[in-house]
Amino acid sequence: MGTCLVDKIAIIGVGLIGGSFALALKRAHAVQRVIGWDTDADNLSLATQLGVVDEAALSIEQAVADADVVMLAVPVGSMLTAAQQVVKHMKPGAVLSDTGSVKQTVVAQVEPLAQASSVYFVAGHPISGTERSGAGSAFAELYHNKRCILTPTVNTNISALTLIEKLWQTAGSEVVHMDVVKHDRILAAISHLPHMIAYSLVNSVSSYDRYPENILDYSAGGFRDFTRIASSDPIMWRDIALNNRESLLEMIGQFEQFLAELKQDITSADGARLYEFFYRSKVSRDAILANVAKDD
Amino acid sequence: MGTCLVDKIAIIGVGLIGGSFALALKRAHAVQRVIGWDTDADNLSLATQLGVVDEAALSIEQAVADADVVMLAVPVGSMLTAAQQVVKHMKPGAVLSDTGSVKQTVVAQVEPLAQASSVYFVAGHPISGTERSGAGSAFAELYHNKRCILTPTVNTNISALTLIEKLWQTAGSEVVHMDVVKHDRILAAISHLPHMIAYSLVNSVSSYDRYPENILDYSAGGFRDFTRIASSDPIMWRDIALNNRESLLEMIGQFEQFLAELKQDITSADGARLYEFFYRSKVSRDAILANVAKDD
Repeated sequence: MGTCLVDKIAIIGVGLIGGSFALALKRAHAVQRVIGWDTDADNLSLATQLGVVDEAALSIEQAVADADVVMLAVPVGSMLTAAQQVVKHMKPGAVLSDTGSVKQTVVAQVEPLAQASSVYFVAGHPISGTERSGAGSAFAELYHNKRCILTPTVNTNISALTLIEKLWQTAGSEVVHMDVVKHDRILAAISHLPHMIAYSLVNSVSSYDRYPENILDYSAGGFRDFTRIASSDPIMWRDIALNNRESLLEMIGQFEQFLAELKQDITSADGARLYEFFYRSKVSRDAILANVAKDD
Repeated sequence: MGTCLVDKIAIIGVGLIGGSFALALKRAHAVQRVIGWDTDADNLSLATQLGVVDEAALSIEQAVADADVVMLAVPVGSMLTAAQQVVKHMKPGAVLSDTGSVKQTVVAQVEPLAQASSVYFVAGHPISGTERSGAGSAFAELYHNKRCILTPTVNTNISALTLIEKLWQTAGSEVVHMDVVKHDRILAAISHLPHMIAYSLVNSVSSYDRYPENILDYSAGGFRDFTRIASSDPIMWRDIALNNRESLLEMIGQFEQFLAELKQDITSADGARLYEFFYRSKVSRDAILANVAKDD
């Protein structure tokens, strides 16, 4: 902490993810200057007003021109365009990284562009976030005690990888290296599938029209907590669904089988099997909680 | 507040629900004496030690013999047995009530028993709870600013209904009257379906065995919060699933249709439809939050 790791960082996309990364590095004095860029001018202006970034760039080219590190913190579907715009203006030997929730498509799109422009690309994904978005929701502690997965390939420069790793550690994260395909499969299970289910549940329940009143008015804390993630940014999740299709469809299929098994047990009123199904789930869920408590 | 509403209340089942009801009434001085009974002797002993109840009964008969109100706070599948045991020992004109999460089967089972024994039955369901269970998890504020649904029938005695309503109001709840069938349908949507989904999700993800490590170790706060309700008591949920089968199967079927629609949109990589699906859900979910904030 307190060691300046780089002179200038450009954050492309100053929302919850990019903005919180900037705030964490600034607080740790790990960077001299953070310059921000966002396609949403209002959000960029807000980021500057709130001190999330030191300076708003006048253009994406200006943002990255003399940056040592460029962090792409935009929705997965916008990574390719953003990368195309930045690589040709970055200085040779600078490091490009990203925060995308899907890694196979991003690596396939961005790595060749970076190589062609003599900049080093390191793919990453901080496992944290809230259901909120925008510069106004950024906070320096977002990455504290969270995991950040980096997915290096055979082409990844080791010095660049080490630098990005140090930045995430400085932001408070535990950094894990993982194979790109494995990342996308595991995230499909623990993050992308739950989001698809939460969105489907809210749409299903809110379309229940047997009674004139809005039945969601009766929902207590359980439903509210359970569906929190259905308030997440629809653009971000559209892009994740489009870019992690294969793994996500596999996981939805697996979930459907378990739900079908449960439905069958309800249909046949099989109390012993229902108890076993719920008990098994409770044991797994309680184990997560125990692990988390251990980590804290 | 501060008005003593009844002399003696018997709580049958001194867990989270029954114990919290006892604590709330004692704190408000709404009752002179609370006597508890539980089939789990250790839990009953704990309830007495913690002051959740004033006294542990030596038998279910002794608990209810001179009680003005008997509250059945046991899993739905144990209601019939508990009611059969209490009605023959209750004094004529006393009031019997319950906290079951399903109302059609409970009313069908308990109302005739109560009528035959000249006691008044009022069916109820407090819409609150946590994923914890047992006397040790009971707390007096559980029902603060929560809804409690009473489901009177044509046979319900108005004085008994008014008394039970006052007790729940004293415990901090907003009391709502609702048709029995409507209660079970709405709860299937906003509570029972989400629990079935959470249990299925945890079982589905924890059975993912493509990698040797436990992938749940990678799950962040989102998964933990989303699956909190999968830590709920398996016996309670077995009984709910068995006793609200028709409505629950209808809601699972409706959810499956929405998930299938989403799966189709992912398969065909239809970004516009995916965005619309997620956006619509976010709007509904955010509206719940706005309503809740308004209520608080």
